Amino acid sequence: MTRHVAIIGAGSSGLACIKTCLDEGLEPVCFESSDDIGGLWRFKENPEPDRASIYHSVIINTSKEMMCFSDFPIPGHFPNYMHNSLIMEYFRMYADHFQLTRHIRFNTKVLQVKQRSDFSHSGQWDVETENKDGKKERHIFDAVMICIGHHCHPNMPLQDFPGIHSFKGKYFHSRDYKTPEEWRDKKVVVIGIGNSGGDIAVELSRVTKQLYLSTRRGAWVLNRVSHNGIPLDLTFSRAVNFVLNAIPFGLYCSLGERQLNQRFNHSLYNLKPKHRLFSQHPTLNDELPNRILSGTVQVKPNIRKFEGSSVEFEDGSVVEDVDLVVFATGYRFSFPFLASHVISVSGNQAPLFKYVFPPELDRPTLAVIGLVQPLGAIMPISEMQARWATRVFKGCNKLPSVAAMLKDVQCKQDTMAARYVTSQRHTIQVDYISYMDEIAELVGVKPSVPRLLLMDPRLGLSVMLGPCTPYQYRLRGPGKWAGARQAILTQWERVTQPMQTRPCDQPQCKCSFVLPLILSAASVGLAAYFSRNSLSAFLQEPTAVLDKIKSYLTAQ
Amino acid sequence: MTRHVAIIGAGSSGLACIKTCLDEGLEPVCFESSDDIGGLWRFKENPEPDRASIYHSVIINTSKEMMCFSDFPIPGHFPNYMHNSLIMEYFRMYADHFQLTRHIRFNTKVLQVKQRSDFSHSGQWDVETENKDGKKERHIFDAVMICIGHHCHPNMPLQDFPGIHSFKGKYFHSRDYKTPEEWRDKKVVVIGIGNSGGDIAVELSRVTKQLYLSTRRGAWVLNRVSHNGIPLDLTFSRAVNFVLNAIPFGLYCSLGERQLNQRFNHSLYNLKPKHRLFSQHPTLNDELPNRILSGTVQVKPNIRKFEGSSVEFEDGSVVEDVDLVVFATGYRFSFPFLASHVISVSGNQAPLFKYVFPPELDRPTLAVIGLVQPLGAIMPISEMQARWATRVFKGCNKLPSVAAMLKDVQCKQDTMAARYVTSQRHTIQVDYISYMDEIAELVGVKPSVPRLLLMDPRLGLSVMLGPCTPYQYRLRGPGKWAGARQAILTQWERVTQPMQTRPCDQPQCKCSFVLPLILSAASVGLAAYFSRNSLSAFLQEPTAVLDKIKSYLTAQ
Repeated sequence: MTRHVAIIGAGSSGLACIKTCLDEGLEPVCFESSDDIGGLWRFKENPEPDRASIYHSVIINTSKEMMCFSDFPIPGHFPNYMHNSLIMEYFRMYADHFQLTRHIRFNTKVLQVKQRSDFSHSGQWDVETENKDGKKERHIFDAVMICIGHHCHPNMPLQDFPGIHSFKGKYFHSRDYKTPEEWRDKKVVVIGIGNSGGDIAVELSRVTKQLYLSTRRGAWVLNRVSHNGIPLDLTFSRAVNFVLNAIPFGLYCSLGERQLNQRFNHSLYNLKPKHRLFSQHPTLNDELPNRILSGTVQVKPNIRKFEGSSVEFEDGSVVEDVDLVVFATGYRFSFPFLASHVISVSGNQAPLFKYVFPPELDRPTLAVIGLVQPLGAIMPISEMQARWATRVFKGCNKLPSVAAMLKDVQCKQDTMAARYVTSQRHTIQVDYISYMDEIAELVGVKPSVPRLLLMDPRLGLSVMLGPCTPYQYRLRGPGKWAGARQAILTQWERVTQPMQTRPCDQPQCKCSFVLPLILSAASVGLAAYFSRNSLSAFLQEPTAVLDKIKSYLTAQ
Repeated sequence: MTRHVAIIGAGSSGLACIKTCLDEGLEPVCFESSDDIGGLWRFKENPEPDRASIYHSVIINTSKEMMCFSDFPIPGHFPNYMHNSLIMEYFRMYADHFQLTRHIRFNTKVLQVKQRSDFSHSGQWDVETENKDGKKERHIFDAVMICIGHHCHPNMPLQDFPGIHSFKGKYFHSRDYKTPEEWRDKKVVVIGIGNSGGDIAVELSRVTKQLYLSTRRGAWVLNRVSHNGIPLDLTFSRAVNFVLNAIPFGLYCSLGERQLNQRFNHSLYNLKPKHRLFSQHPTLNDELPNRILSGTVQVKPNIRKFEGSSVEFEDGSVVEDVDLVVFATGYRFSFPFLASHVISVSGNQAPLFKYVFPPELDRPTLAVIGLVQPLGAIMPISEMQARWATRVFKGCNKLPSVAAMLKDVQCKQDTMAARYVTSQRHTIQVDYISYMDEIAELVGVKPSVPRLLLMDPRLGLSVMLGPCTPYQYRLRGPGKWAGARQAILTQWERVTQPMQTRPCDQPQCKCSFVLPLILSAASVGLAAYFSRNSLSAFLQEPTAVLDKIKSYLTAQ
């Protein structure tokens, strides 16, 4: 029987795995190569090799109600988008509350994870570790959960940049960027308009003489601060997801692009990509338009070559005397402690069943947790994967046949290839609600909206029309949490609370709850049905509906 | 006959005055107490007493096509919102082009400006100056133009902050703020949510442990980047101005507030003031909402008292261990070199006829230039005032009777008091288009839209529906500039040019010009006529119209 589980890494995924193992009566041992929890989110002045590294000012792109673990809401007074230091604070609270730290062996690196000779019937693994004094140990585990993230190994395609090796300025990967001050009055080129590239460009542009943001493809740029000032990810509900899945891809891209162009015209700002809005991993940046309009950030095409201290772009323009080039060119992942036949990674693609299980192992006792890039928050996804994986380890859930799994892997790859721009960046994309539901269904914890609407209409409406907060996956089934209902019904209070720092006359809407909701739902339905313009209105509608729910809850 | 004109100060207003004097055949001598031109806009590491001082990252709030001098467009490749270093570059180009610098005596401070004994018939002034070696000189001038700005003397109402003198942290006025780095990981309180307060709060919040933004009244916050990414001030045309002046104040405030709340709900963010949108000088800040949503900026009410190193706010909340308090509490102006009976300033109010002429002097040979706080750009206004003042000096234009002037002054003060929140901040407010037209009418350079529509419809439409760029006041009358028409017809090219830094597929709209314009105009009229909601649409419409004009012009 499976009992002993090795967890590799004590970042957000590792912590969720320890907690889940404990919930399921398993005995986890978590090996963490550094001296602390938090992984990616722990800021260190000096980046360390093979370990994620962030800059000082990093603020997460997903809001607190969407990124929390499903049975441990983030405190009401925490801000909606958290600075890395607050994320660490939350992780510490989580680890303390569920007494996770005692299961972690710090300063212990995993050297090798190998199937035991009797693997085909025991499913067991030999795990070799090394502590910081160089002492090696061997352990036997019934199962292994890999939680090393996918931001350890910087991707730096220097071969694509002729002349870079004789470039007279400095250059480094975005992971080595910490604070802007050193680059005051310098000329800097940032390569890549992903979230790191955009953030770093904006930050540096406040001090540099000139900041150039080089992008091969351009990008659609979204705002954290969405309609009415609500965090963007709170505007996606099950209802919105349902409609988006029902209408043609091109249409809902057009609707979204139209809204983004209303903020700023992507053609006018020379950022417009050839690809569609939902064909890329989204770049969120609230400050970029203002920096472009003030010229402090200048958008440039791809770099053709370096020569001395100058940079030539593909449009033939040349910038002289460049002091720094930042490669915000993303990351590669790999599993150096695993034999390549267990999981073969190539071009940032790993053939894993639902991004978790290697399909061709004799026994399903190895799970990769958190190896996804969601449109949404990663923590609840890791937690959901962990809940599934532990149930599979224990035999409560079965995996389908190898052939069926391989087919599913292929199908997911094909879907991704059809939708996304071909890039190493788009190999592990998942949509938050769809993917969460997919795994939740396997675990038996997917909420039943019709049932809720009948038995507990207030909750049902919140689940259907409100943001798809992680608590929804604790309403029933294994791991059910008694506090889930209350957490859902109070989620808007926790959204507004951190901003109540100055007394201010609030417009109190004491209107009845049921009628506007029915009207909203009806109008949404009609709008979605009749016309493209109405669909655009629909995309804005959920916020209005949520506002009404919020008013109602606040008025209670 | 008036010939010799003393100009005090070589900032933007002073430069415009030199240029205008030369145009009018006068002989200007400009006294500048520092060693360079630019005034407020010249960044210095160390602020000097009685001289304006800005922080390193200041970017102007008005866009280049609206802030330029009327016969000297800002180069196409300059960004729309310019960094202070670029504004300086533009001023230098202006000074070079019109050979203004030779008329400036640098390092020369004006000690006294006094009416000569025969003033009532000569209108002449004794001007006493001192150079940096302490050498004093006396000069006689036929007229004097005061261009010292209104950002020299920091307003620091310490008496309203009990305990400030024993406060253990540091405190200074916003003019003494330069760069954020010193305050990394510190706790900082910024007092005041004007443009300086907002900008400094946002900048500091990227490095501080926590930034508190204390505001007594709250504020409506506008964005530089307006609808479709167009600079905000380019969206106001004569047509829009006409409608706004025609509808009730409360209604157009409501329309504007509704739009601002769609960006972010000012109640939710606890910024909502009790006053209406157009009852305050606007705060422009594109980044504040994102900083509030991430909690890095915390909005607080007014401060009740200081105690040791802690700050108590009026809601009773206390913040301990505050390292720095920045007083972004504005400025006071005064004329230390003038006898108080010439212009009596009290509570930041100076009784000047149209903000330029002291009404009770025997001869109109003293003009104050640039002593306005416009909703819009100040440079073209200073220039227009200078054009009027020099014409008055020369006798080409007459001022009305003292009684009429005093009545006009009182009327303006009453209008301001009725519209604006009572504050030292709101004593010299003017609306850009209305005020420019008012002075232009006196000078005889106000464009006649009906005439233009008849004689030169393309130009007429641009003048009516396009942004009210300063070139419009060079189409006719004294100071007419042959390049004005072309400058107006190419203004959108200069808006888009600085962003054309990356080749990008442009959607080319080759549609006909006349039909969409007529349709737009008709729909605008109907919308304005029929309903409040349609009026909101109208407020968005001009941009669409301008886009069409732009497409048309680009397609030429």
